[in-house]
Amino acid sequence: MVDARVEAERLDREDPLAGLRDRFVIDDPHLIYLDGNSLGRLPAATAGHLDAVVRRQWGAGLVRSWAEWIDLGTRLGDRLAEHVLGARPGEVTIADSTSVNLYKLAAAALDARPGRGTIVLDTDDFPTDRYVVEGLAEARGHRVRTVSSDPDLGLDLARLRAAVDDDVALVVLSLVSYRSGALTDMAAVNALAREAGALVLWDLSHAAGAVPIELAATGADLAVGCTYKYLNGGPGAPAFLYVRRELHRTLRQPVRGWFGQRDQFRMGPHYDPVDGIERFLSGTPPILAMAALEPALAVVEEAGVTRLRDKGMRLGELVVDLARQWLVPLGFRLASPARAADRGSHVSLEHPDAWRICRALAEDAGVVCDFRVPDRLRIGPCPAYTRFVDVWDALDRLRELVIRGDHRRLPVDLARVT
Amino acid sequence: MVDARVEAERLDREDPLAGLRDRFVIDDPHLIYLDGNSLGRLPAATAGHLDAVVRRQWGAGLVRSWAEWIDLGTRLGDRLAEHVLGARPGEVTIADSTSVNLYKLAAAALDARPGRGTIVLDTDDFPTDRYVVEGLAEARGHRVRTVSSDPDLGLDLARLRAAVDDDVALVVLSLVSYRSGALTDMAAVNALAREAGALVLWDLSHAAGAVPIELAATGADLAVGCTYKYLNGGPGAPAFLYVRRELHRTLRQPVRGWFGQRDQFRMGPHYDPVDGIERFLSGTPPILAMAALEPALAVVEEAGVTRLRDKGMRLGELVVDLARQWLVPLGFRLASPARAADRGSHVSLEHPDAWRICRALAEDAGVVCDFRVPDRLRIGPCPAYTRFVDVWDALDRLRELVIRGDHRRLPVDLARVT
Repeated sequence: MVDARVEAERLDREDPLAGLRDRFVIDDPHLIYLDGNSLGRLPAATAGHLDAVVRRQWGAGLVRSWAEWIDLGTRLGDRLAEHVLGARPGEVTIADSTSVNLYKLAAAALDARPGRGTIVLDTDDFPTDRYVVEGLAEARGHRVRTVSSDPDLGLDLARLRAAVDDDVALVVLSLVSYRSGALTDMAAVNALAREAGALVLWDLSHAAGAVPIELAATGADLAVGCTYKYLNGGPGAPAFLYVRRELHRTLRQPVRGWFGQRDQFRMGPHYDPVDGIERFLSGTPPILAMAALEPALAVVEEAGVTRLRDKGMRLGELVVDLARQWLVPLGFRLASPARAADRGSHVSLEHPDAWRICRALAEDAGVVCDFRVPDRLRIGPCPAYTRFVDVWDALDRLRELVIRGDHRRLPVDLARVT
Repeated sequence: MVDARVEAERLDREDPLAGLRDRFVIDDPHLIYLDGNSLGRLPAATAGHLDAVVRRQWGAGLVRSWAEWIDLGTRLGDRLAEHVLGARPGEVTIADSTSVNLYKLAAAALDARPGRGTIVLDTDDFPTDRYVVEGLAEARGHRVRTVSSDPDLGLDLARLRAAVDDDVALVVLSLVSYRSGALTDMAAVNALAREAGALVLWDLSHAAGAVPIELAATGADLAVGCTYKYLNGGPGAPAFLYVRRELHRTLRQPVRGWFGQRDQFRMGPHYDPVDGIERFLSGTPPILAMAALEPALAVVEEAGVTRLRDKGMRLGELVVDLARQWLVPLGFRLASPARAADRGSHVSLEHPDAWRICRALAEDAGVVCDFRVPDRLRIGPCPAYTRFVDVWDALDRLRELVIRGDHRRLPVDLARVT
């Protein structure tokens, strides 16, 4: 139990990753940022790198720089595969948004299981995932079978197993729940789906960079995810997609753009996709946004996901310890799995006034975390730059704010949710 | 006939847009850049603007800057609508790539014409457009009816009219041909399609910023296009999409991501798209790439598309005049419409050795234009920054190079096409 700030200070002194904080731009010493689960901080090297890409590659190199850019997504994808996703070379690339990638891979998966008419979804999965999959199901006359996951504890494997029968073409799940942070057992899910002959499409948005991922070792089929949370790629940074190598030849995605075409610049009369991961690409990628991933990935690679995970778990434990000690008596409830090993990097706290508390905390107390409907505060420390004292101070400010009732001056107006 | 360089110098002195060149980074005085049709030059204000977005909005503002970013695409879309596309407020937004937008709008259009089973395509249209549309047709059991456009002169309206019968759901065309530069009559195409009850989806990639476009006045239904050519938005800058206001309610696009959802952050159980243009959005947009559009658009707005078009036509006339005078005797052939009014901003020249000539021109003579299979050199002056002397010097260097035969030292190896 860390019941004094000096304890948190000691944890920081002993933190092998403490020096990593200097790799980020942190220019407001009062601000405590616990929303790395939504948008990661700006790496210190990013602005300079991007400026060089803009001035040297675009400004001076002009169209000739496409020699450098043409395979940037796949080069970054290989780094992500090796250091973050546990995938093999040539299995990952960067392109589009998570939503678009999810659409493309889900559509490809359904085509690859022609005799099957059911898609399994988690009712509590991130909205875009549910909307995209339901849209595909509607367009193709597939059924959507939902598995009710516990809003705090996540997916129940026995329920999932019961839902995945031999009519299931595809299971779409998040490895880490966007709301509760609950972590799913990827190996178990992949195994039970494989046994049933279904494909699994993972959304790794809240997991990538936060927890070790073993796509190859667990036999994962398909995955997508964003790069702007724990990978610190910047607002709306392009997403990644993974397809297990053995599936490349059999899967065809629906958005048949020229970046997936064999001999792209021969501009042949008909679509003939390349054999590799680039067959899942479509149009011209946003190079400037993609370039910001390079320095961001370098930080994660240097730290290593295992060390990040180790610190992330201890940061989460501190959140939970302090929440139990200080916040539960004030009407908060832990809305995440209690054990760090069962969570990603964020912790959810339920409070009926969570919306106003979240706003007041940012506006009056200099603590940025985030809110999810209807009543959840997400506390998302990022092991790359969050200190133990940040967690201590943030929860201390939160407790003081609630005791003073500062949030009550704000209107109860969910229409202001952004 | 401009047969002396002093004539070109005079045209530059009299050019009302001459001062606009200073709004671009041009740091190699020897390099002549005639590939604005592929990737526009870097505006002088872009690097500073992007740096401010990175450091202030992302670095300091962090997740709170989503208040600024959340509708950036639609704010930029409104500027594009007013100054470039001739569309009404709320009809244009920026998102994804041209390929993805084309897919989304084409799919939505097919759904809106359920009784019709044919899509009309131009055989000579840009590959990604053909591949995407053929993919959609294949998935839905639609027929693709191709209209053979002339590789030099573009689409024949009588042929198109003959192809658009009452089984046609959708016509997909480029306003300016990527290869020949041939300009199609948007008003005539929209009228003939409307008469037949078909929708038209325009690809404006080679037209936006180069020719005046009147989407609203001509009753255009749908359009997409890139922003990295004459709009100078940077490599792979996000694309735009336009949907005529009256169609918003009836069209639904297939990639149902959360950026199209009503009350996005309420994260409701099912997809319920907003009424406006944002219903055609899907996932989180790449903000850094999108932000680079702001200073780029400012330059185009300041110049005005009418003035850009006027200068662009005269630059093209100079290309054609000099090509006839100097290059036709050397084995080149004009592979674009002869009249400036029938072209966009680039001119195509056919030569059996075009590939090697294009490479040698860049490597030895400091002139960057581009090549398209099998034998076309595209000369793409951009009225915002190309001077008349640039065209004169470029064609002079080209003629000298071909006379000397410098290109013959390169291998005849189309595999090197990039």
